[in-house]
Amino acid sequence: MHNYYGNPVARLIEEFAKLPGVGQKSAQRMAFHVLNTPTDKAQALVDAIIDAKDLAKYCSKCYNLTDQETCYICENGTRDAGTIMVVETPQDMAAYEKTREYDGVYHVLHGAISPMDGVGPSELRIKELLLRLEDEGAVKEVIVATNPNVEGEATAMYLSRLLKPLGVKVTRIAHGVPVGGDLEYVDSITLLRALQWRREL
Amino acid sequence: MHNYYGNPVARLIEEFAKLPGVGQKSAQRMAFHVLNTPTDKAQALVDAIIDAKDLAKYCSKCYNLTDQETCYICENGTRDAGTIMVVETPQDMAAYEKTREYDGVYHVLHGAISPMDGVGPSELRIKELLLRLEDEGAVKEVIVATNPNVEGEATAMYLSRLLKPLGVKVTRIAHGVPVGGDLEYVDSITLLRALQWRREL
Repeated sequence: MHNYYGNPVARLIEEFAKLPGVGQKSAQRMAFHVLNTPTDKAQALVDAIIDAKDLAKYCSKCYNLTDQETCYICENGTRDAGTIMVVETPQDMAAYEKTREYDGVYHVLHGAISPMDGVGPSELRIKELLLRLEDEGAVKEVIVATNPNVEGEATAMYLSRLLKPLGVKVTRIAHGVPVGGDLEYVDSITLLRALQWRREL
Repeated sequence: MHNYYGNPVARLIEEFAKLPGVGQKSAQRMAFHVLNTPTDKAQALVDAIIDAKDLAKYCSKCYNLTDQETCYICENGTRDAGTIMVVETPQDMAAYEKTREYDGVYHVLHGAISPMDGVGPSELRIKELLLRLEDEGAVKEVIVATNPNVEGEATAMYLSRLLKPLGVKVTRIAHGVPVGGDLEYVDSITLLRALQWRREL
């Protein structure tokens, strides 16, 4: 892109454009917003970036993000520590938290097994999950809530083979048609899974 | 929004969400991108914000953005300094630069007259335009390229009344149907203007 506004502004546009989902036009709008905003407001964004990089860390139990030693879910004594839901990312954990129904705890793998991307089991927090099962002892069930795609399924399969011999119950979240959806627009594989996973009413 | 990821991450999401066109979901994606990016990459964004706020300034002639005393257009000796195009924002200047046809110079008002928003002529770089016409002397034409909306038209009218008595030719960019458009989808006022502004072939 031609440099119409001088180097510092061009560089800011370029940096914003590196953020996910931000195109050249949005990056320009963001840059002009920052230029036209009072310095203390721009500084607040700068500080937020620096603090997030400095202070955000993983919960020593479940590897969710937190700024404490353990996250607010692991700290919450009313949650059922005997049920661990395994998710790929903190965002997936948040998605399940929004249902307000799940009262167990989580374990965040930070990814899924993907040989194509060079991600093997050792890149994920699987070893930590095993240690946790050993340490905590009383875990009754591990619910595998990795994504319903190739990598997520492979990870679920891997975890199932790894954990079952330890005598812990391993379950997988159901496949099926989404609530409120129209069957007409649901893909064939999902329709097939919904049929296979059907249950008696 | 519930604070799932600890305060520093929540604050970063909040700051990103203040940027124009960034919703809660995009802000979250951006925050996680920053968290997962190497520290030097995040620092590059931080530095770009700080530098843009520190170093970006207005060209002392035309009030375009630059990091020099005067901008690259005013510095360019091959441009026709006798023709000044008046625009509302640096982005409008860039839009005309992209046509690669205009070889005059610019004057950036940084807004348009808008009593509703409390913006009067004194809030814009109009005084500076008058001084420029006095100082430079040889200006033959001022092309008013403010936006084709109420505020832009009011500003064009104001400038016309102000500049004509000084003996300078004041023109306004044409209204009409956009090139490549379909008449069916053009609004009535634009169609009317296109008729009024018609010219002989």
